[in-house]
Amino acid sequence: MDYRKIKDRDKDEDPADDHSDNLQEKAHFAVVDNMALLAGISNNKSQWKLKSIVTLALTILTSSQAILIFWSKRAGKYEYSVTTANFLVETLKCALSLAALARIWNNEGVTDDNRLSTTLEEVIVYPIPAALYLIKNLLQYYIFAYVDAPGYQILKNLNIISTGVLYRIILKKKLSEIQWAAFILLCAGCTTAQLNSNSDRVLQTSIHGWVMAIVMSLLSGFAGVYTEAIMKKRPQRNVNVQNFWLYVFGMTFNAVAILIQDFDEVVNKGFFHGYSYIIVLMIVNHALSGIAVSMVMKYADNIVKVYATSVAMLLTAVVSVFLFGFHLSLAFFLGSTVVSMSVYLHSLGKLQR
Amino acid sequence: MDYRKIKDRDKDEDPADDHSDNLQEKAHFAVVDNMALLAGISNNKSQWKLKSIVTLALTILTSSQAILIFWSKRAGKYEYSVTTANFLVETLKCALSLAALARIWNNEGVTDDNRLSTTLEEVIVYPIPAALYLIKNLLQYYIFAYVDAPGYQILKNLNIISTGVLYRIILKKKLSEIQWAAFILLCAGCTTAQLNSNSDRVLQTSIHGWVMAIVMSLLSGFAGVYTEAIMKKRPQRNVNVQNFWLYVFGMTFNAVAILIQDFDEVVNKGFFHGYSYIIVLMIVNHALSGIAVSMVMKYADNIVKVYATSVAMLLTAVVSVFLFGFHLSLAFFLGSTVVSMSVYLHSLGKLQR
Repeated sequence: MDYRKIKDRDKDEDPADDHSDNLQEKAHFAVVDNMALLAGISNNKSQWKLKSIVTLALTILTSSQAILIFWSKRAGKYEYSVTTANFLVETLKCALSLAALARIWNNEGVTDDNRLSTTLEEVIVYPIPAALYLIKNLLQYYIFAYVDAPGYQILKNLNIISTGVLYRIILKKKLSEIQWAAFILLCAGCTTAQLNSNSDRVLQTSIHGWVMAIVMSLLSGFAGVYTEAIMKKRPQRNVNVQNFWLYVFGMTFNAVAILIQDFDEVVNKGFFHGYSYIIVLMIVNHALSGIAVSMVMKYADNIVKVYATSVAMLLTAVVSVFLFGFHLSLAFFLGSTVVSMSVYLHSLGKLQR
Repeated sequence: MDYRKIKDRDKDEDPADDHSDNLQEKAHFAVVDNMALLAGISNNKSQWKLKSIVTLALTILTSSQAILIFWSKRAGKYEYSVTTANFLVETLKCALSLAALARIWNNEGVTDDNRLSTTLEEVIVYPIPAALYLIKNLLQYYIFAYVDAPGYQILKNLNIISTGVLYRIILKKKLSEIQWAAFILLCAGCTTAQLNSNSDRVLQTSIHGWVMAIVMSLLSGFAGVYTEAIMKKRPQRNVNVQNFWLYVFGMTFNAVAILIQDFDEVVNKGFFHGYSYIIVLMIVNHALSGIAVSMVMKYADNIVKVYATSVAMLLTAVVSVFLFGFHLSLAFFLGSTVVSMSVYLHSLGKLQR
């Protein structure tokens, strides 16, 4: 109930939805509104706190994930199978959701909102994000016929734009003019921060490569936006139950991926072949950041997610200077400036909406 | 009189200057204001038209200036002396201002606003911008001890920030939060568009180099802001008279520069040694763009000037693709995107002020 109240308040504050021209009527609503505001202030505050915590968690976990990848590459090449690792990530997320649920059941008892059993109508949408990610991951093998790996890193910034566009179209949420400008700047800033002497090669990408990159960014954007729609459709439903169902299908699709891609290797060398402490650490980190993504989808939105992961990318580079003696380029400073201004403008655009 | 009226209206529209809280008083003023608005609308429109024309002229002339420089470099090295060329630019500007004045005197007769004779109190400020530019140009020889030429091109973008800061401090004009963000983005965008594989060397600039670059950008920013203050202090004074006095001192200081730097060469080889058609074209173009700068100072402001010259820089690069077969880099596209967003946000910030 409280969540819905806050949502309605948000709507009321949107001038685009405001069609009442009568001033007296407006004044009356303002009084009612203010009373609702006083009642909702503490909820609003705890909502804001939750939103900040999950966003911060996502930023730190995404950043440390990238650092673990650098670290593992430095430590030498590991011959583990990526599909088994992905499967373990989904399994761990599933287990953590169940553990959280068990605690809640113990404390609060089983209610309509936190019971695991569900209807077909509720559960039928949960496989869709996992399926979209699977398709995207399969396409990933083909795009390297058109673009090299650093070029693909650059093109992946198209995800920012596709997420914004799909967020607007599918979730029908409005961004102000300033926020749109900020979003385009976020994309330009992230790309600038990643520029290096070979980046210009991406301009020679063929039409096929561009189409594939755009399709992939749309798939990934759609998966994100669809997950948000699922999480927010039932605001009262416990997030751990929603996560459980998301991750169960994630496990299933990754099991299929093992069968398709690495079946022989797993049979011959064993499931855990090539695993090391750092791989385990990466799996744990990946699982935690996956849960953080779900939380951001539930309590914040895709726009916040994109900003969090973009800031994480910059954070990673700065931390790498101290950890690995990386040098920051002028392009990185310029890109970081643009991203910082984008974050500032986004918050400014929120106030002025 | 009309100009002052428009200026006062501008002030009225600035919410920061609005201290009247009484609604009735406000309503009364609104009626008076609307009447003044109706009377001023045609003036406002012609003011806006003039502002657009001088801004467009500055953009095109600055852009073609850069193209002429490319062209002259391509055509081979010219052994002309830069100081004599600068002197001729000032002389031509002076002559053009006098020609424009002669026409006005013929049509309208000599008035208090368009007569050339002046008081010491009016004329005493005119040498200051020329003196500042002279100091800046002399410092330019020393900065190359600390920074290479491409590095200096990058550092010159600090002018954008210094102009904004001095515009705020000296002219006491306010920029909105969005406009400040847009200004920082303009600086980052212009620098990004100029990035190349050697740009990172600028990060190794010593503290001395940085201090000199900052001092030079402050000098150049101060000269610009001071010129605007001179031009706007007497709104009724004919712009050609103001230009005449500015350029007379420009000629004087450039004559001094010839004596200091190129005296021997001029005596031995002659004043016009090494001149060619393209040098003459460059001098004419430079003179016209100098007049456009004065006009922008009079009818628009330093912020518009900075935007116009930044957009001109991007325009030059695009035109060079067709003229000289240049290749545009990914950094150029990203920088152009950031500059475009900056222009958009600046105009958005104007509306929302």
